[in-house]
Amino acid sequence: MKTELKEKIERIDRALNEYLPERDNAQSIIYTAMRYSLFAGGKRLRPILMLETAKMCGGSEENVMPFACAMEMIHTYSLIHDDLPAMDNDDLRRGMPTSHIKFGEAAAILAGDALLNKAFEIVSAAASDNAARSLRAISELAKSSGTEGMIGGQIIDMQSEGKDITLDELRHLHLLKTGAIIRSSCVIGAVLAGADKAETDAVDEFAANLGVAFQIRDDILDVEGSEAELGKPVGSDEKSDKNTYVKLAGLEKSKELALLYSQKAKKALECFGEKADFLLRLTDYLTARTS
Amino acid sequence: MKTELKEKIERIDRALNEYLPERDNAQSIIYTAMRYSLFAGGKRLRPILMLETAKMCGGSEENVMPFACAMEMIHTYSLIHDDLPAMDNDDLRRGMPTSHIKFGEAAAILAGDALLNKAFEIVSAAASDNAARSLRAISELAKSSGTEGMIGGQIIDMQSEGKDITLDELRHLHLLKTGAIIRSSCVIGAVLAGADKAETDAVDEFAANLGVAFQIRDDILDVEGSEAELGKPVGSDEKSDKNTYVKLAGLEKSKELALLYSQKAKKALECFGEKADFLLRLTDYLTARTS
Repeated sequence: MKTELKEKIERIDRALNEYLPERDNAQSIIYTAMRYSLFAGGKRLRPILMLETAKMCGGSEENVMPFACAMEMIHTYSLIHDDLPAMDNDDLRRGMPTSHIKFGEAAAILAGDALLNKAFEIVSAAASDNAARSLRAISELAKSSGTEGMIGGQIIDMQSEGKDITLDELRHLHLLKTGAIIRSSCVIGAVLAGADKAETDAVDEFAANLGVAFQIRDDILDVEGSEAELGKPVGSDEKSDKNTYVKLAGLEKSKELALLYSQKAKKALECFGEKADFLLRLTDYLTARTS
Repeated sequence: MKTELKEKIERIDRALNEYLPERDNAQSIIYTAMRYSLFAGGKRLRPILMLETAKMCGGSEENVMPFACAMEMIHTYSLIHDDLPAMDNDDLRRGMPTSHIKFGEAAAILAGDALLNKAFEIVSAAASDNAARSLRAISELAKSSGTEGMIGGQIIDMQSEGKDITLDELRHLHLLKTGAIIRSSCVIGAVLAGADKAETDAVDEFAANLGVAFQIRDDILDVEGSEAELGKPVGSDEKSDKNTYVKLAGLEKSKELALLYSQKAKKALECFGEKADFLLRLTDYLTARTS
């Protein structure tokens, strides 16, 4: 799986590099800042999910790649803004200085804005043999990253800091904050491939459950992971009294839940038969990952 | 003209209110913050330009309104982020506390992000009888607000602070920072109305020159305007040693230039005959405005 992923990541990175090259003009620093965060060692999970879902539904990589790159830019912008002093105030990400430490706060704010904006530049300018389908995919992209998706989750997260919340509230928070764009990554793959409603619903069900399993694993790794593999200190969630699955449900129960949600995710793909092979193996891999 | 504008502004405000209502959910504060800045007394210049250009080109208001509202949201987000402590650090705008003073810095950053995101939610979800045309209009919107448009101009502006620049460099800065979305407002109106290439080029030429005239008038008002009408202190540009037309070319020459560019703008619309009536009068009004 690691070798397969590496090859896919390289293809995505080449496309990202083409969509966002360095520029030699008066505002070149913004491109440097955008690229710094975009090429900081991301796992490219969302683009991979989109490309593989499209493949499973019979779509072509060419049509999907602009959207896959746009999704990674949106994910990256959210990290840059999350790290800002007014937000989580993080100096390091994946062992490297965060954007505002490297480029200053003003440039980091603009680099985040610019990545969000660039995502929509790319998908609206991409060649499309089906404009109605492209519009629907852009709409999914925008909705999932907005106030009823990722940004909504960030607001709820901010407001629940230092408060006791229930497991249901935690699930709702993650459903928006991280789950919404994991879901739309898969749904966009299906939409662009021309999947029918039953297939698109199955893909959505898969991604919703995978998102929960992925988040629980994240929380477990913060307790059980190794600092070297994670690129960040272990135990930081507990130190900052963050609401996590481990805190609310305990470590053992969290492991059970991760397994349960990953099984639900895989079950949703039954209708695709052996075409789902890669996504099934990816689900197992992500649920057992160590970084 | 004032009465005509008031009626148009009310129609735009009603549409904005429909696209961005208050919400009663866990993240309701983000809607409150977005609406606070969106309804802070903006002149709605960009939506008016878009709607009137479309009308001049024979388009329907219904098709254009979602884009007009999206453009105003993009303009508003740029003001919220511009005002942040790390950027211009302004406490007041139009006589009211800025977003980060009212809601805190984290919420202001997210409210800006959310308005940019919402713009693309609205235009991609809008009913379209011509999906290819909608895609092209979204592409114009995204390009003009991005790194080769508004954000690019903000970066250049940031970098030229406290430096001596030439009049040509100042024009280039404004062409991106404020000019790009004034141009695309008009171009999108033409595109959605199905204007041909010659008409779209004429509209672009009009808007490019209007944008310069508008900016010069802004710089003049900072010297000659009245504090009560402007809602901000007069002379603030000089105090902060900002590069303006008045600083680089002098007051008299700036007045000549404003007139020159507004004449060039009007000349570009000759091919539309009397259908251009409103935009011609608007150009005169904006070039002579006192607030």
